[in-house]
Amino acid sequence: MTDNKPVQIRMSDYPGKGNARNIWRITHDPLRSIEEGEVLVRLDYISIDPGMRGWITNKRSYMPPVKPGGVMRAFGMGEVLESRATGLAVGDQVTGFTGVQTHGVFKQESLRKIGLPGVSPHMFLSGLGMTGYTGYFGMTDIGQPQDGETVVVSAASGAVGSVAAQAAKLAGARVIGIAGGSDKCGYLTDELGLDAAIDYKNDDINAALSANCPDGIDLYFDNVGGDILSAVLNQMNYKGRIVVCGGISQYDDFASAAGPANFMTVVTHSLTMRGFTMRDYMHRVPEALEWLVPAWTEGRIKFREHIVEGIENFPDAFDMVFEGKNHGKLLLKIG
Amino acid sequence: MTDNKPVQIRMSDYPGKGNARNIWRITHDPLRSIEEGEVLVRLDYISIDPGMRGWITNKRSYMPPVKPGGVMRAFGMGEVLESRATGLAVGDQVTGFTGVQTHGVFKQESLRKIGLPGVSPHMFLSGLGMTGYTGYFGMTDIGQPQDGETVVVSAASGAVGSVAAQAAKLAGARVIGIAGGSDKCGYLTDELGLDAAIDYKNDDINAALSANCPDGIDLYFDNVGGDILSAVLNQMNYKGRIVVCGGISQYDDFASAAGPANFMTVVTHSLTMRGFTMRDYMHRVPEALEWLVPAWTEGRIKFREHIVEGIENFPDAFDMVFEGKNHGKLLLKIG
Repeated sequence: MTDNKPVQIRMSDYPGKGNARNIWRITHDPLRSIEEGEVLVRLDYISIDPGMRGWITNKRSYMPPVKPGGVMRAFGMGEVLESRATGLAVGDQVTGFTGVQTHGVFKQESLRKIGLPGVSPHMFLSGLGMTGYTGYFGMTDIGQPQDGETVVVSAASGAVGSVAAQAAKLAGARVIGIAGGSDKCGYLTDELGLDAAIDYKNDDINAALSANCPDGIDLYFDNVGGDILSAVLNQMNYKGRIVVCGGISQYDDFASAAGPANFMTVVTHSLTMRGFTMRDYMHRVPEALEWLVPAWTEGRIKFREHIVEGIENFPDAFDMVFEGKNHGKLLLKIG
Repeated sequence: MTDNKPVQIRMSDYPGKGNARNIWRITHDPLRSIEEGEVLVRLDYISIDPGMRGWITNKRSYMPPVKPGGVMRAFGMGEVLESRATGLAVGDQVTGFTGVQTHGVFKQESLRKIGLPGVSPHMFLSGLGMTGYTGYFGMTDIGQPQDGETVVVSAASGAVGSVAAQAAKLAGARVIGIAGGSDKCGYLTDELGLDAAIDYKNDDINAALSANCPDGIDLYFDNVGGDILSAVLNQMNYKGRIVVCGGISQYDDFASAAGPANFMTVVTHSLTMRGFTMRDYMHRVPEALEWLVPAWTEGRIKFREHIVEGIENFPDAFDMVFEGKNHGKLLLKIG
């Protein structure tokens, strides 16, 4: 837990459909020495995302699963302590798939240098990081909300959903956010300025959608699938669009989640459903930052973070994100 | 059954999920006299399509369902016997939603005048009709097959699928057709010149797709949903496209057909699924004919028709299309 003693969180085996509580192992393996083109990094923050559930599911997905015994995959950020790479110097701040560990040796090309005057580097794991990019590209590039359209976003108070919802709002759409609980719903309308919020835990979702979308739904940004997707499908407008986001999907068994029972609405209403993950947009990250940074620094959009401290608390943080207990982008502070 | 005694086939009630055998009633109601802007038409052929199942299902769909007691909806063609409309003259051949009946009185604007030198008018109900347009627009406008891509078409020997498959072939794609039985599969490879055919009734669909699509599937034209859609999803390439066709879907209970069990492949592989019905393209019918007519008259594509004779045999014809017993576009010859 110190700068000198490396700690890793490893996945001992795939949890199957059950709880992942018992699969984590803490190890204290020494680091290998760095080679030409590599750097040693001290990790400061790790991003905790629902998408991690897919990485510990032994099925075909957008990335191969973590191997049993391997360090748990995670996106993280930290500082270069040693460098044998021409493009990175000691003291540089970097992000990348660092794994859940206190230190790591990485090839230079697997990391991206970050840093912006006046911006805390961990912001590059939240609003200015992968979840921010996911919300931005999913909404603006795929969804393309138009002025006056009705847009619904599920998990709208989450790290991806909140950026997606705010991007739609800035494009001139009427935006209805779906979230669980009155706190999160209050955040959507009071803090983010959405036009309405639906509490899926307490509201009748069908009735609430009807009441808040009198002209039907033109665009749905789907973070959750399941019953909410089914309910939205019933109120989609002709030629509506559905963006199916792989960023924070909350499926317990992601790779085998079933399609909506009323799937044929896709045909009867000539809908377009488009799935994506950030791998489709990694080459366009600068474009997202060009939009996100000024929108954030000038106060047009807001981000919220929820920070858990200590690498040993990774199992708690991992559970938290699936139970929807975090408020804002969940980060694990390593040091 | 004669030119002088009108006959109608009516739907007495919605059949629910069961067999539709007992819902049909034959009536001999006299025709009302025609008013200004209307014509009296003698129907010669009626198109029998799987999509009809949706019209007798009392659920939200792309068209309102037939009302109990009403004449069964159908697309048909016939000849104008009397006219009080400026745009249609006695003797003109017309198509439109005529219903299953020997005669009908229609507003001029609900019909389209047809006719092409040397072309039997009933062709405008098959290859040069709605099913032909559906296959053409679905494949070329939505699917957009590219030279060298691997394209899979289900119900490929059917009226829509066969046009879609041939359009993909003409675009330079490798085309694999799926059909039920060796006769239909032989037709796909021997007559239509597809690269391979898969017999879903006798082949292991997953193994057959693997064997015939060694480079994965770029584009799937889905006519059937269900298990075949699931199997294809497992072998879709990254950023693949799925056209979900509402033209001849064979769902018994169309409006509530469930999505595929492995729906999340849409996310993990960044797929686009787009549903459509011909209502999206009614304004572009001339464009389809511009492509279909020369392709057919010059022998680049083939159509096949299956004609059942006699309006009293409508119930048999209706069952036939759901049991996959027709070979080619099913038409009911009225006279």
